[in-house]
Amino acid sequence: MAERQRPLIFVGNDDGYQAGGLKYLSDIARQYGDVFVAAPTLHQSGKSSALTVETPLRAKLVAEEAGFAMYHVNGTPVDCIKLALNYLVPRQPDIVLSGINHGYNSGNSAIYSGTMGVTFEGSFLGVPSIGFSYGDYGAEPNFSPCEPVVRRMIELAIAGKLPTDVCYNVNIPKCDKVNGTKVVAAAPGRWTEEYDRRTDPHGRAYYWLTGRYVPSDPDNENQDLYWLQRGYATVVPCRADQTARDFIPAISGII
Amino acid sequence: MAERQRPLIFVGNDDGYQAGGLKYLSDIARQYGDVFVAAPTLHQSGKSSALTVETPLRAKLVAEEAGFAMYHVNGTPVDCIKLALNYLVPRQPDIVLSGINHGYNSGNSAIYSGTMGVTFEGSFLGVPSIGFSYGDYGAEPNFSPCEPVVRRMIELAIAGKLPTDVCYNVNIPKCDKVNGTKVVAAAPGRWTEEYDRRTDPHGRAYYWLTGRYVPSDPDNENQDLYWLQRGYATVVPCRADQTARDFIPAISGII
Repeated sequence: MAERQRPLIFVGNDDGYQAGGLKYLSDIARQYGDVFVAAPTLHQSGKSSALTVETPLRAKLVAEEAGFAMYHVNGTPVDCIKLALNYLVPRQPDIVLSGINHGYNSGNSAIYSGTMGVTFEGSFLGVPSIGFSYGDYGAEPNFSPCEPVVRRMIELAIAGKLPTDVCYNVNIPKCDKVNGTKVVAAAPGRWTEEYDRRTDPHGRAYYWLTGRYVPSDPDNENQDLYWLQRGYATVVPCRADQTARDFIPAISGII
Repeated sequence: MAERQRPLIFVGNDDGYQAGGLKYLSDIARQYGDVFVAAPTLHQSGKSSALTVETPLRAKLVAEEAGFAMYHVNGTPVDCIKLALNYLVPRQPDIVLSGINHGYNSGNSAIYSGTMGVTFEGSFLGVPSIGFSYGDYGAEPNFSPCEPVVRRMIELAIAGKLPTDVCYNVNIPKCDKVNGTKVVAAAPGRWTEEYDRRTDPHGRAYYWLTGRYVPSDPDNENQDLYWLQRGYATVVPCRADQTARDFIPAISGII
């Protein structure tokens, strides 16, 4: 009888193939299975589930050894995983991981997140799909506080214990050691002061993206921001399908 | 007593400020209120809720008359509405419209759609927010079959009859006259054959985005593709927040 194959773990991200968080995540993943990385050539933060439509993609193999391969692709985070699944991977992955993102994807940031774009794409495969984000915005974060949370999620995925009707948005606070992990909802809120208006040397206005997230209910214990601020990691189960099924009957009655 | 102000209707899109669908939608909207358009300078299909992070934005006023203004912005669909709400609009809009997109945003395409990116952004304001897409892929579509559906949605929004806990993904089939409107879920499915692989004159591979959507349950009457194929418009109520709240208790027990 053939030996059982090691699981194939796909790893993507949005910070680009040279990001420290990607290396940290794929190094842990390699302890659990064969790892296939396809990540953007350049930094692709805030790219959501964007696709490259107007220009063609290219993929470049940058590392290959037993049980490990890594490509970079000149597109968005979702381009990378889609192209990989169509042409690059040796077989369909058993697990999809994304990150570790340099910075949070908490509150409503998930909708803008390329890390979560990859994770939603993984969920279409019907396999466990997990995005990781770490609340450290420094140039060279120390990702070691993420290790127990990342291992726990990978081990649950390999054991077949994570429901695959949903995917997972995991945020980890910058700290020495996380206090625990809470399964919660994304904190609703609004971005304010989203652009910094400046004037160029020719007297014309230009605008840089910036902004501050104001949660609508900051003391709510059922939301991710509450626990991140208290040193806990958070897991938000998510669906790529945004249909609000509970509203279909009422709206059918109106339209 | 001051005369009641006409509603301010924000209109965005992803096909760019010169698209026929944008003009068609904003011309109808102007019959119901003051209209403010902020749309991408260039074609931005498939941009989801992507943000421009690495470069600054600029906005250019291209039309202004009583009750109407139009800017184009050198960014994504969501950049346009965010920048408009922060710096360009005379007051906060009462309604957000997006489209009319040239092509469907049915099935799981909503997650990749810039038209829906604008619509989700509108939903964060707590006002009725509606994205329209038309199943005509020609160079100069005739949008007139969309008119009754667009009017009905705008009139319901102005009458305060559309719940604002959700936003609306409206698809309209290419036809002479729509058979009716159905409130349904987005059809789940998978994209296949997503890239066309070619070889450049130097012998290197490149890949164009293409693909075919395969719904997992094509005969399901509760899904948008079923009705679009039968000449009906579809309305899918959607939430920007992708939290799967129904899975929180079960996953709390695992992690």
